[in-house]
Amino acid sequence: MSKSACIIALPYYSGAGHTAQIATAIAKGADRQGATSHIIDIEQITARDWANLDRADAILFGAPTYMGSVAAAYAAFLEEAGGRWMDQTWADKVAGGFTVATFGSGDKLATLQRLSVFAAQMGMIWVGPNDIGAPVFPAEAGINADGGWLGLMGSSISTPRGAVRPGDLDTGQRFGARVARLCTRMSR
Amino acid sequence: MSKSACIIALPYYSGAGHTAQIATAIAKGADRQGATSHIIDIEQITARDWANLDRADAILFGAPTYMGSVAAAYAAFLEEAGGRWMDQTWADKVAGGFTVATFGSGDKLATLQRLSVFAAQMGMIWVGPNDIGAPVFPAEAGINADGGWLGLMGSSISTPRGAVRPGDLDTGQRFGARVARLCTRMSR
Amino acid sequence: MSKSACIIALPYYSGAGHTAQIATAIAKGADRQGATSHIIDIEQITARDWANLDRADAILFGAPTYMGSVAAAYAAFLEEAGGRWMDQTWADKVAGGFTVATFGSGDKLATLQRLSVFAAQMGMIWVGPNDIGAPVFPAEAGINADGGWLGLMGSSISTPRGAVRPGDLDTGQRFGARVARLCTRMSR
Amino acid sequence: MSKSACIIALPYYSGAGHTAQIATAIAKGADRQGATSHIIDIEQITARDWANLDRADAILFGAPTYMGSVAAAYAAFLEEAGGRWMDQTWADKVAGGFTVATFGSGDKLATLQRLSVFAAQMGMIWVGPNDIGAPVFPAEAGINADGGWLGLMGSSISTPRGAVRPGDLDTGQRFGARVARLCTRMSR
Repeated sequence: MSKSACIIALPYYSGAGHTAQIATAIAKGADRQGATSHIIDIEQITARDWANLDRADAILFGAPTYMGSVAAAYAAFLEEAGGRWMDQTWADKVAGGFTVATFGSGDKLATLQRLSVFAAQMGMIWVGPNDIGAPVFPAEAGINADGGWLGLMGSSISTPRGAVRPGDLDTGQRFGARVARLCTRMSR
Repeated sequence: MSKSACIIALPYYSGAGHTAQIATAIAKGADRQGATSHIIDIEQITARDWANLDRADAILFGAPTYMGSVAAAYAAFLEEAGGRWMDQTWADKVAGGFTVATFGSGDKLATLQRLSVFAAQMGMIWVGPNDIGAPVFPAEAGINADGGWLGLMGSSISTPRGAVRPGDLDTGQRFGARVARLCTRMSR
Repeated sequence: MSKSACIIALPYYSGAGHTAQIATAIAKGADRQGATSHIIDIEQITARDWANLDRADAILFGAPTYMGSVAAAYAAFLEEAGGRWMDQTWADKVAGGFTVATFGSGDKLATLQRLSVFAAQMGMIWVGPNDIGAPVFPAEAGINADGGWLGLMGSSISTPRGAVRPGDLDTGQRFGARVARLCTRMSR
Repeated sequence: MSKSACIIALPYYSGAGHTAQIATAIAKGADRQGATSHIIDIEQITARDWANLDRADAILFGAPTYMGSVAAAYAAFLEEAGGRWMDQTWADKVAGGFTVATFGSGDKLATLQRLSVFAAQMGMIWVGPNDIGAPVFPAEAGINADGGWLGLMGSSISTPRGAVRPGDLDTGQRFGARVARLCTRMSR
């Protein structure tokens, strides 16, 4: 791996395991493009994790949507990270978001907006997945099935308990690959 | 019908017919509760329609979500209505919104947020449908299937061309009934 | 005071005291209209406070905007309140929001959107202040100085440490009075 | 100028001239960094302008905030540009936004959210100005005076008719320079 390999941090919170699975899928897609991913469970975040966040080229934020925004545990993480606002420590890093809810809409867009406004305050550059969506391109079964573009949306509406849709994981891998490519393009 | 019968105006724009069907369903539900509904196609809006809007107790705004917000034709309607902002002509009226897109999310929440901010500028009081959603209460087949609460969301993802889901129409009827009940409660 | 006196609960979080002052101003305006207000500091919330929230006719949510949304402590309060979602215990109550930040914009709208989506999920009816704004009506010095309509916005940009602008408190009193009037109108 | 000079398109709508002045300031800042800017008045857009949009490395969207979103004329422009969604013609371009209203908040964030969701649908990469804001760093008189980070916010509240604040123009120049630097970094 060259010096310019992109470092991607994925700080996430997962109440029922869905968001964790999406984080893993994104990391897999990124690593296949030569990136080095750090998946960080914010409930057990360590000083080393914070160091990885600070040196990352890209940070992808992930949390389930509870009651119209990120889960409260994640809001606490964002507020702590906000201590880096004044010095703009994270400025010019790539940022993105992923979220899961029961429903297709589930007000998940509100979570992604919340994350994108946070990222903008931190001076970060926001990238979403750019998959058109499976119903428009039927050949791409399950890709971006909910039709969300600001970030990745997963649903548990039609899955067994604890599982996400296979298409959501595929969408995650694509998103990870996209972020890795952008990151490499920016760090050449 | 008593003097206090609620007048509900439903100014809508419909590109492919879906939003028009939702408007009709909402009006049906409202009228069954004793309200008098005026469905208004904003592409053919007349002076009489504007008069009905001005004297309505409630205005429910409906437009498909195109490219992350209300269709442009509807944006033009809202801007024209904004001429009533300075005098707060529509203040204290009940307001609500409905929108349709291909996908479950489809960024429809952005349309409902756009409508709710507009309504707030006009001094209106915002009400959404309050159906929990069919996946949570499986007995209520198709009700609020996308999981949207700020307003009504319909999808065309799984329907024949030009059709909305039967559950979206049922959700519309419930929404209309809810608005009529609130309107009556406020005008006693 | 008649039996129909409106009960208004104001659960707030205040980091530096600004939001607490706005809460007090809103309560003052509401009580002058015959309402009974309960100001609740969510950092010290008790079982009795929760009972007051449950029996209130209106709930006005208040928190400073930190990093693009409600302060994290308030996000935790909202999530706990979300335990009442499934049974829609708060449905049909009046809801509104108030927030403070350093700046005129300060992304305070994001906080109000977050609160209004939460309220919609809870089945509540959203009302904002409907003051046009002081720059448009110069006679109303300091009223709605930031130009926010979805809810009340306060700023600390030009005030001594810990203080809010006098106009923000006046706007708060008007907002409280408006909510009390609406609440009375709905409970007759 | 090298082959890698960044091409920046600034399609804008301006009702009273404020937004046009911001567009000019951004272009000035970008060109000083070696970019080539095309300022496009969407009321008089030509086929050549569309070609410039299609070949641009970055597109900065600008419109005043009217009634809680972009001016309706601009909504029509966005919808027309949306014809490029299916083929993702604008994917991977840098995107950003600027808006002007009377007030400090003026619901300008809603306009920037609307633009960022549009850009995400188009597969674009969103960048905001990352100036902390003048009240926090008093030395930077007038820079980001409203405290907006998702995009550039200007106000006309305290200016002579038709004028924007000098600090808004300075903020614009900085934003243009930032976009040009990012664009160069991405095209090396």
